[in-house]
Amino acid sequence: MEFGFDAKTEDYRKRLQSFMDEHVYPAEPSLSSHTGWEPPPVLAELQARAKSEGLWNLFLPGEHGAGLTNLQYAPLAEITGRSPSLAPAALNCAAPDTGNMEVLAEFGSPEQQREWLEPLLRGEIRSAFAMTEPGVASSDATNIGTRIARDGDEYVINGHKFYISGAMNPNCKIFIVMGKTDPSAERHVQQSMILVPRDTPGLTVKRGMRVFGYTDGDHGGHAEVLFEDVRVPASNLIGTEGSGFAISQARLGPGRIHHCMRLIGMGERALELMCTRALSRTPFGRPLAEQGVVQDWIAESRVRLEQARLLVLKAAWLMDTVGNKGAHTEIQAIKITVPSTVEWIIDKAIQTYGAAGVSQDTPLAALWTAARTLRLADGPDEVHKRSLARRELNRWRDR
Amino acid sequence: MEFGFDAKTEDYRKRLQSFMDEHVYPAEPSLSSHTGWEPPPVLAELQARAKSEGLWNLFLPGEHGAGLTNLQYAPLAEITGRSPSLAPAALNCAAPDTGNMEVLAEFGSPEQQREWLEPLLRGEIRSAFAMTEPGVASSDATNIGTRIARDGDEYVINGHKFYISGAMNPNCKIFIVMGKTDPSAERHVQQSMILVPRDTPGLTVKRGMRVFGYTDGDHGGHAEVLFEDVRVPASNLIGTEGSGFAISQARLGPGRIHHCMRLIGMGERALELMCTRALSRTPFGRPLAEQGVVQDWIAESRVRLEQARLLVLKAAWLMDTVGNKGAHTEIQAIKITVPSTVEWIIDKAIQTYGAAGVSQDTPLAALWTAARTLRLADGPDEVHKRSLARRELNRWRDR
Amino acid sequence: MEFGFDAKTEDYRKRLQSFMDEHVYPAEPSLSSHTGWEPPPVLAELQARAKSEGLWNLFLPGEHGAGLTNLQYAPLAEITGRSPSLAPAALNCAAPDTGNMEVLAEFGSPEQQREWLEPLLRGEIRSAFAMTEPGVASSDATNIGTRIARDGDEYVINGHKFYISGAMNPNCKIFIVMGKTDPSAERHVQQSMILVPRDTPGLTVKRGMRVFGYTDGDHGGHAEVLFEDVRVPASNLIGTEGSGFAISQARLGPGRIHHCMRLIGMGERALELMCTRALSRTPFGRPLAEQGVVQDWIAESRVRLEQARLLVLKAAWLMDTVGNKGAHTEIQAIKITVPSTVEWIIDKAIQTYGAAGVSQDTPLAALWTAARTLRLADGPDEVHKRSLARRELNRWRDR
Amino acid sequence: MEFGFDAKTEDYRKRLQSFMDEHVYPAEPSLSSHTGWEPPPVLAELQARAKSEGLWNLFLPGEHGAGLTNLQYAPLAEITGRSPSLAPAALNCAAPDTGNMEVLAEFGSPEQQREWLEPLLRGEIRSAFAMTEPGVASSDATNIGTRIARDGDEYVINGHKFYISGAMNPNCKIFIVMGKTDPSAERHVQQSMILVPRDTPGLTVKRGMRVFGYTDGDHGGHAEVLFEDVRVPASNLIGTEGSGFAISQARLGPGRIHHCMRLIGMGERALELMCTRALSRTPFGRPLAEQGVVQDWIAESRVRLEQARLLVLKAAWLMDTVGNKGAHTEIQAIKITVPSTVEWIIDKAIQTYGAAGVSQDTPLAALWTAARTLRLADGPDEVHKRSLARRELNRWRDR
Repeated sequence: MEFGFDAKTEDYRKRLQSFMDEHVYPAEPSLSSHTGWEPPPVLAELQARAKSEGLWNLFLPGEHGAGLTNLQYAPLAEITGRSPSLAPAALNCAAPDTGNMEVLAEFGSPEQQREWLEPLLRGEIRSAFAMTEPGVASSDATNIGTRIARDGDEYVINGHKFYISGAMNPNCKIFIVMGKTDPSAERHVQQSMILVPRDTPGLTVKRGMRVFGYTDGDHGGHAEVLFEDVRVPASNLIGTEGSGFAISQARLGPGRIHHCMRLIGMGERALELMCTRALSRTPFGRPLAEQGVVQDWIAESRVRLEQARLLVLKAAWLMDTVGNKGAHTEIQAIKITVPSTVEWIIDKAIQTYGAAGVSQDTPLAALWTAARTLRLADGPDEVHKRSLARRELNRWRDR
Repeated sequence: MEFGFDAKTEDYRKRLQSFMDEHVYPAEPSLSSHTGWEPPPVLAELQARAKSEGLWNLFLPGEHGAGLTNLQYAPLAEITGRSPSLAPAALNCAAPDTGNMEVLAEFGSPEQQREWLEPLLRGEIRSAFAMTEPGVASSDATNIGTRIARDGDEYVINGHKFYISGAMNPNCKIFIVMGKTDPSAERHVQQSMILVPRDTPGLTVKRGMRVFGYTDGDHGGHAEVLFEDVRVPASNLIGTEGSGFAISQARLGPGRIHHCMRLIGMGERALELMCTRALSRTPFGRPLAEQGVVQDWIAESRVRLEQARLLVLKAAWLMDTVGNKGAHTEIQAIKITVPSTVEWIIDKAIQTYGAAGVSQDTPLAALWTAARTLRLADGPDEVHKRSLARRELNRWRDR
Repeated sequence: MEFGFDAKTEDYRKRLQSFMDEHVYPAEPSLSSHTGWEPPPVLAELQARAKSEGLWNLFLPGEHGAGLTNLQYAPLAEITGRSPSLAPAALNCAAPDTGNMEVLAEFGSPEQQREWLEPLLRGEIRSAFAMTEPGVASSDATNIGTRIARDGDEYVINGHKFYISGAMNPNCKIFIVMGKTDPSAERHVQQSMILVPRDTPGLTVKRGMRVFGYTDGDHGGHAEVLFEDVRVPASNLIGTEGSGFAISQARLGPGRIHHCMRLIGMGERALELMCTRALSRTPFGRPLAEQGVVQDWIAESRVRLEQARLLVLKAAWLMDTVGNKGAHTEIQAIKITVPSTVEWIIDKAIQTYGAAGVSQDTPLAALWTAARTLRLADGPDEVHKRSLARRELNRWRDR
Repeated sequence: MEFGFDAKTEDYRKRLQSFMDEHVYPAEPSLSSHTGWEPPPVLAELQARAKSEGLWNLFLPGEHGAGLTNLQYAPLAEITGRSPSLAPAALNCAAPDTGNMEVLAEFGSPEQQREWLEPLLRGEIRSAFAMTEPGVASSDATNIGTRIARDGDEYVINGHKFYISGAMNPNCKIFIVMGKTDPSAERHVQQSMILVPRDTPGLTVKRGMRVFGYTDGDHGGHAEVLFEDVRVPASNLIGTEGSGFAISQARLGPGRIHHCMRLIGMGERALELMCTRALSRTPFGRPLAEQGVVQDWIAESRVRLEQARLLVLKAAWLMDTVGNKGAHTEIQAIKITVPSTVEWIIDKAIQTYGAAGVSQDTPLAALWTAARTLRLADGPDEVHKRSLARRELNRWRDR
C-alpha cells in the first residue's frame, strides 16, 4: 500500500497547475457575463495552448489519447474541476465528448473513427449523447422508447429525447443515440447505439432545458430533441445490434471517475474561496476565520474531501487492476457520496459570501448547480444506494 | 390555548384558495419561458381580479390596508407562497413593496404617503429598498458606508448599493435608501432613511445580480446601484435624522413572518408535487410512492412543515399580543429554521423528479433558489443563531 | 388561535415547579449511586408530599384522576420530564402504570377496578404491560404468539414476553398481558388483554434486560417473562374477547403525549445544563459560551424545542377536541420527531461536559438513553413514518 | 499509488481472522452477564493461545514487539475491533496499556523497562494512564493541576485525577501520572510523567466512573483517583523533567490510529449485524432487507466505512514515511471523522434490532458507547476541528 503519485502523474500535475495559473484562472472573469449556449470566445485560444503544451486528450487511454491509466488521469481531472467552465474543454476532456470518444475509440468502426472520432480528438467538433427520455425513469434502460428500425440499408429512428447534454452547443455535429432495435429481445439486448449527424432531416433540437436558471453552456446545454423518421445509413450503427446496453455500461465507469474527480476539484476550489473569504471578512469586529462555525465548516470540508478523494482514487486503481466489474462497488460508492459531499462544501462556501455567493460574482452558485445536478444525473443516488445495498446484503445471505 | 383559525381568517382562506385554483395556478405555465426582469404579462389581469374580489393589500394592518392582524394574515401569506412568482404580486403583497408600504404607512409624512404610498397601495408602481452594500457585512448596520449629507434644503446621497431587490423592475419608481446622516453619532442613531425617485440624476442601476442563474424577476431582481451626488429635497427624509436603524428594525418583524409563511406555502407546494410525482412514476416496476426512502422524505416533510408552521403562527401571535420586542426570540427562531427546513423539502421533491426537477418544467428549482437565498438574506442564519444563543445563555447567567 | 395556557394549567404549573425546586431536584444527587431495580428510598417521601399538595394522578382524566384534559396535563408532564427518574413516579404519573390505569379506568370491570385500579391510584403497587415478544416485530400486532385459551371458568396463558417494562420492580403486583384468544379470527380481533397477578404460578420473571448498561429502574426495568400454563379466572379478561387490539390503540394516544412532553422536559433540562456548563467552563482562555459551535448548538436546541413542544400541544388539543382518530397524524408526527430531536440536544449537552457527560455525575447519559430508546419503543420511527407517508400520499391519489 | 496490502500484512490478517473465528467470537456469549471491572474469566485462555500463535504485542514496533509498521498493524487493529471486549486484550494490544508500553519502550530507562515494561509485554499486569483532571478542560495541557515536586531523592505527587482508564482493573499495577514539575516554566515544558505503583501510600482509587451505565471493564474502567503526598523514588520519572507534554504528544499518534482502526472494525461488525438482521426479519410481510430505508442505511454504512478506512490507512502510511508531525492533519482528521461515522452506523444497526439492540443481547449498545465516548476522549472533536481549520486557513493567509 502506497499513497504517493507516480512520477509521470506528478509531472503532469505540475504542468497542468502551471497552465491553470497562467491561462485558465486569468480567463475566468470574462465568463461572468457569458450566459448563452455557445462556447466562450476565450476557449479556442486556451485549446491551442493546451495542445501545444501536451495537455490534450489526457482522459483517453490507448493510442488515440495520452495513454494514461485511470489512476494517472484522475488527479488531473481533479485539477480541471477547479475551473469547470473552462479547463475541461480547454484540454478536450469535457463531458459528454469524453464518453463519446471512448465509445468510438473502443467500439467504432475504422470508418466511424475517421469521420467522427478524429475531428473530436482534434477538438474541431463537439458531440451529444442521447439516452434520457421524458416521462420515464431512464435509470432503467428497459424504459427507453426510442425505436431504431432497420429498413433496407438504413436505420429509421423515431423518439423523443430530453436533457440531452451537449446538443445546444452550435459546434455539436454528431449525436450518439440510444434506442431499441429489438423491443422483444431479452431485457439487456434490446438496445443499440447509432450515430446521427446533427443536420440529418427529422432531427429537431426543440429547446434548451435550464438548470436552476442556467443554460449550462459549459456542457453544451441540455436539450429536448425530437427524432422523427430520421434516416441514417446502416453503417452508422455502433458495434452490433443489441450491444447498446453493454456499451452504455462500459461508458459509465470512466465517466464516473472523471465526474467525481472534477467534483473533488470543485470542492477544493470552494474550500479555497471559503478560506480566503473568511480571512478577509470581519463582520461585528471579528474575522470570519476566527468564528467557530466557519472553522467547523472548513475542518469538515477538508476531512470530507480527503476521504472522498481517496475513495475515487481507489476506484480508479481497481478499474486499472481488476476492471470495471471488479470496481463495481467502489464506482457506485463514489457516485453516491461525492456529489452530495461536494454540494455540502459549496453550500457552506456560499454562506460565507452571503448574497455574492449566489450571484455571478463568484463561481460558487454555478459550481453548486453542477454538484446538485450530479446527485440525479446517471440515475438518482437512491437507485445506486439500493443496488449497492443489495450487493452488501448478498455477502451475508445463506450464512 | 387553541389551534383553530378564527372565522375571518377561515373566510379569507377559502376565498383566496378559490382565487388560486381559478386564476393563479392556471396562469403558471405561461411563466416557464419568462426569464427577464419585467413583470409577466398575465400579472395585470390577476391584480385587477384580486382587487375586485377584496383580496388586496391583505398584508397591511390599519386603515390603509385590509386591517388584518399578523396572525390573521399569516395563513394567507402561506397560500400565496404556493405560487410565489404570481400570487404575492397579484394581491399587492409582494416584497420588497410590502415592507416599504409599512414604513411609509407608519413613519411617512402625509405628503410622502400621498405621493408614494398611495400609488403603491393601488399597485400602480413598484419600489426598492436599498440597504445592503458590497464588501461589508450588512447584517451589521454600523458597516453602512452610504452618506446622506444635508446641504441646505436638500440631502446629497453618495454610496454604492448591491443586491437591491426590486430595482430591476421597470415599474420600480421609488427607492428607500438607508445611509448615514451622522457617522459620528452613537452606533444606532447614525443611520437615516430617505426617499429617492428612480429618475433622480446620479442614481445609476448598474446591473442585475443573478441568483443561481435566475434574474429573480418576481422580486424585481436584485441590482447593483450607484448613488453619485444624488440630490433630493430634505422633505424626502423618512422620520427624523438618526431614526433609520429603528425603522429598519420595525420593518423586519412582519417581513420575517411574511417570508416564512410564504416559505411554508412553498414547502407545501413542493410536498404536493413530490406526492403526485411519487404516485405517477414507476421505475423498476414499483411506484416511487411505495419506496421506503421516498416515504421517509414525505413523512419528514409533513412533520417538519407542521412544526415550522406552528412556530411562525406563534411568532405572529406574539407580535400581535406583546409586540415585536416580546416576539424577538420567536422571530429570530423562524428566520433560523424555516428557510433551511423548506430548502430540504424542495431538494427532496427535486430528487423525485430527476432532471425535470432542476429545469424550467417544474417550479421546484426556482422555489429552491428562493429558500436557499433566504438562508442568507437579512443576515446569514449564523448571525441570528449567535444572537439567539446569547439571549438563551443570559437566562442562566448569574444563577 | 391562542398560544397561552389557561388559568388552571398555569396554577398547576406554578405549584409543580415549586414542588420540583423544593423537593425533587434536591433529591437527585441521592440517585447517582442507585443502580438497581427497586425504587430509590427517597421516592416514598416524595409521593406522600405530592399527594398532600394535590399533585397526584394528574395524568388521569375523569373522576378517578385529576380530571385534566390532555392539553392541560401536557405542560405538567413536560415539567416532570426534567427529572424523569423521580418526578413522574413521585406524582404517580409514571409509565407503564399510567397506561395501565387508563385501561382499567376505561375498560375494567368494577371488580377489576376495585382490586387493581384503586391500589394503583393510591400508589401502593406498580404494574407491568406485557405485549412485546422476542423474535418478531411487535409493531405488527398480528405477530403476537402468546395464547390466552379459555378452559372452563379460567383462561390459560402460554407465551414468551420480552422487554416488559415495570416487571423488575419488586412492587409490581399485576401484569396486563396481551395475547390471542382466537388466532383464526379477523386480523384485529384476534387479541385480548388479561390481568395476571405477579405471583400466579407459571409466571416467571426470567431476567432484566439492560438498556445501554442501565437497569432502567425508573421504569421498573424491562424483563424477559415466561408464561407457562398460567391460569387466571375468566373474570380477569379486560373487556371482551377480541378487544385487545382496540384497547392497545386507545392506550397509545395519551401515552405518546406523555412520553413526548416528558422528552421536551428532558430537552429543556439538557439545554439548561449545556448553558450552565458553557458559562462556567473556559478551555483555552475563552468561555465555551462564547464559542460559535456551542452557540450554534444552543440556538438549534432552543428552536427545535419550541417547534416540538408546539406540535405536541397541538396533538393534545386535537385529542381533546376531535379524538384519537382525528389526531392520528399529529400523534404519529410527535412520535417520529420528538425522540430524535431531544436525543440530538442531549448529545450536544454531553459533548459540552466531556467525560463527565457520559458518567453518573450528570443526568445526561441517562436522559440520552431514555430518548434513544423511545426512537424504537412502540415501533421504530421508520414504521410510523411509512404510515404517515401513506396517509399523506392518499390525499393526492385520484386527483 | 497502490491500494493492496503487502504479503506480511495479508498473512497476519488471515491468521488473525482464523483466531477470531475459532476462539474469540465463540467466547463472546459468555460476556453478556459480565458487568464488573475485573477481566472476564475466558481472557487468560485466549491470551495464552494468542501468544502461542504469534499474535502477541502486534501493536509495538521495534525489538520489544512484533516490529510491524503502523500501516501493517492498522488492518490488524481493525480486525480486533470487531470484538473489542475480548480481542485487543487477548492479543495484549488493549488501551491504555499499548500507549503505556510505547512510552516505556521509547522513553523508559532500562530499569523502568525491566520492572514495568517486561511484565506488561508478557501480559502479566495491566496499567493506567493518569492525565485527565476534573473541573478543567484537559485537552489544554496547561490546565493540569497535579504537582510532582522534587524532595531529595523522591518526588511527591499531589493531585486529583478523573476518568483514569484502566485503574479499576484489579490487575492494574502501575500508573503513569502526568503532572507539573515546574508550573512557572514555559507552557509546554511544565509537565512531566512519572511511574507510580498502585500500592503506593497516598494513592486512592476512589470510585469507578460509569459510561452510559456500563463499567467499561474492557478498558479496566475509568476511575477517579486521588494522589495525596504520594512519594516515589526520583528514578521513577520518565525521561527528563519537562518532557511530559512531548511524551504525551508522541503517545497520541499511534493511539489514534489504533482507536480509529478498531472503530472501523466495530463499524464493520455493526454493518454485518445490520445485514444479518435485515435478512432474517420480516415485519409486515416484507423482509427488512428489501425496505428502502434499511437499504439506504446499509449503502451509506458501506460507503462511509470505505472512506474512513482509507483515510486511517493513509494517516498510518504518513506516520511511517514522514513521521507524526507530517501526518498531523490526517491524524487529526481521523479523530474528527471516524468516531462519529461509526457511531452513526451502530445507531442504525441498533434501530434494525429494536429493543434487542439496546440490551445485552447484542454487542451493539456497548459498541455504540465506545464510539460515542471517543467523540470526546483525547479532547472533544470540536477542539480538533478548530485546530485543523486553523492550519487550513494558514495555507491561504498572505496570498
